[in-house]
Amino acid sequence: MSKTSTTPIRIGIVGHGNLGRGVEVAVAHNPDLRTVAIFTRRDPAGLRPQVAATPVHRIDELPAFAGKVDVLVLCGGSKDDLPVQSPELAARFNIVDSFDTHARIPEHFAAVDRAARAGGTTALISAGWDPGLFSINRVMGEAVLADGATYTFWGKGVSQGHSDALRRVPGVAAAVQYTVPVDSAVQEARSGTRAELTTRQKHTRECYVVLAPGADAQAVREAIVTMPNYFADYDSTVHFVDADELARDHARMPHGGFVIRSGNTSDAARQVIEYRLQLDSNPEFTASVLVAYARAVHRLHAMGERGARTVFDVPPGLLSPRSAEELRRDYL
Amino acid sequence: MSKTSTTPIRIGIVGHGNLGRGVEVAVAHNPDLRTVAIFTRRDPAGLRPQVAATPVHRIDELPAFAGKVDVLVLCGGSKDDLPVQSPELAARFNIVDSFDTHARIPEHFAAVDRAARAGGTTALISAGWDPGLFSINRVMGEAVLADGATYTFWGKGVSQGHSDALRRVPGVAAAVQYTVPVDSAVQEARSGTRAELTTRQKHTRECYVVLAPGADAQAVREAIVTMPNYFADYDSTVHFVDADELARDHARMPHGGFVIRSGNTSDAARQVIEYRLQLDSNPEFTASVLVAYARAVHRLHAMGERGARTVFDVPPGLLSPRSAEELRRDYL
Repeated sequence: MSKTSTTPIRIGIVGHGNLGRGVEVAVAHNPDLRTVAIFTRRDPAGLRPQVAATPVHRIDELPAFAGKVDVLVLCGGSKDDLPVQSPELAARFNIVDSFDTHARIPEHFAAVDRAARAGGTTALISAGWDPGLFSINRVMGEAVLADGATYTFWGKGVSQGHSDALRRVPGVAAAVQYTVPVDSAVQEARSGTRAELTTRQKHTRECYVVLAPGADAQAVREAIVTMPNYFADYDSTVHFVDADELARDHARMPHGGFVIRSGNTSDAARQVIEYRLQLDSNPEFTASVLVAYARAVHRLHAMGERGARTVFDVPPGLLSPRSAEELRRDYL
Repeated sequence: MSKTSTTPIRIGIVGHGNLGRGVEVAVAHNPDLRTVAIFTRRDPAGLRPQVAATPVHRIDELPAFAGKVDVLVLCGGSKDDLPVQSPELAARFNIVDSFDTHARIPEHFAAVDRAARAGGTTALISAGWDPGLFSINRVMGEAVLADGATYTFWGKGVSQGHSDALRRVPGVAAAVQYTVPVDSAVQEARSGTRAELTTRQKHTRECYVVLAPGADAQAVREAIVTMPNYFADYDSTVHFVDADELARDHARMPHGGFVIRSGNTSDAARQVIEYRLQLDSNPEFTASVLVAYARAVHRLHAMGERGARTVFDVPPGLLSPRSAEELRRDYL
């Protein structure tokens, strides 16, 4: 597809959970990219690549790949992996990560920026859809409609953090939590009235819970719906299911949501911008975003940019395999 | 609002039709921007600024404003004004235009680029929503979902070109044409099935026509619905109304539409990205986009960029009055 480069961009994948597997598949969809190898902390012999021919190496073999990888896509978690891996690897490689602990983004950016500048690399943090594509729409919506209100809705989708919180409740053997946007609130945001919407008005939480043997259903339900931060501020519903039903009906990872900016350009003129994602697979979509940004990072590096960047710093055209001429002619 | 600059960016507005008036109002919504003057081909004394204090000058006084304007926003038409004005003014000023004759964008880009490079200026062409925000969504949608289909729908909104075509039909005294997206086609695009949709399936055209005295309604209707390029390929409806009704119910300029990218990241996972605009006033919204890009052009120029650019070349963060630190902390 690419008219500008002939040798594919060489991608290294660090970590092979849901996200890493998604990156492997996404790279295979893009002829201008190629996976050099997957790097794992596990025993490489036990790891099954999505694409049969993909080499697998131990993560401690990475230093030997300096000069053989154009961009590393880091697929670890934001809690324990990325705060360490991103600065460490940005010292020697161009990287993309999906760091999504919102409150810690400034410190993560600073740590990665320091490492990348010292190492002469280019590092894009917090790519994905939120943070990521949703963030871009929040910024552009406000920039275009200065006088207005921005709404972000998530779901319907599985929240990993809330599912984990359910599993920590005594008496819960297994659980999945869906965040569900309230339809009337979405309509309200879309209407351009700029209503103020509370946490409870915007989302409900639906919990599918498998009880541990002998657990008291009523006590478990009460512990869930009153849990501070996670459930108490929402209308939360608890459904008790058996392990088979959970495995059969709740193993997929759909997600999505809306960013809506409604504003006025004059008293008489209401304007509404809406960005919506409907995702069958959250990790595969996130992976596809990371891969498009890996392409951009390679180009930014080739243009001489060094240090940490976010999606706010990346011109949209750099995400595309097509040349600037082609984009102007066929897509503008 | 801006934390980064203290002196406002100085905007000049060239042309004062619907778009130019919208730019004047949009600048007033942004404390980091200031309108230096409106430049017009008409008699300045006869022009009524939206903001009472805005100075008005004849367009031939522009050379005296070199060094007094940071960015000119050109608000002329794509047919006759911009092909001449954009290169001419880009030789001496940073500019933003909304050139939207799709087939001629490459030659317009080349002419403006030549002038801007020679003059050491920065010039962004074809800003607005389509071309503009819709273009960005077409490119990013395809970049993220490599395996998929893109759909653009316009409306419900007034098409100036089609309204003009109606007015050229013998027997038509006045007319307004609405382009209307077909709801079932939008649903189809959104469903992720990647259906191929024909021109006729995607949009209908609704015409509100005031007949000239003595005109034959049946002949006018026939001439409209069979008109090649404009109406023959669509299901077109003609409503005859009197001049009062046209003035009362059809004087506003609503518009909007959808860019939908649906694709698969794997066989089992359908992913849909949807970008939607619902606009009460097409010119005011377009003006607001131009103004955000004027801010970006000023910054690109300050960063040393020279020559022509499009929305594909502009990092989203540059559109915002907020600093990069603030965006990372509060919007990512």
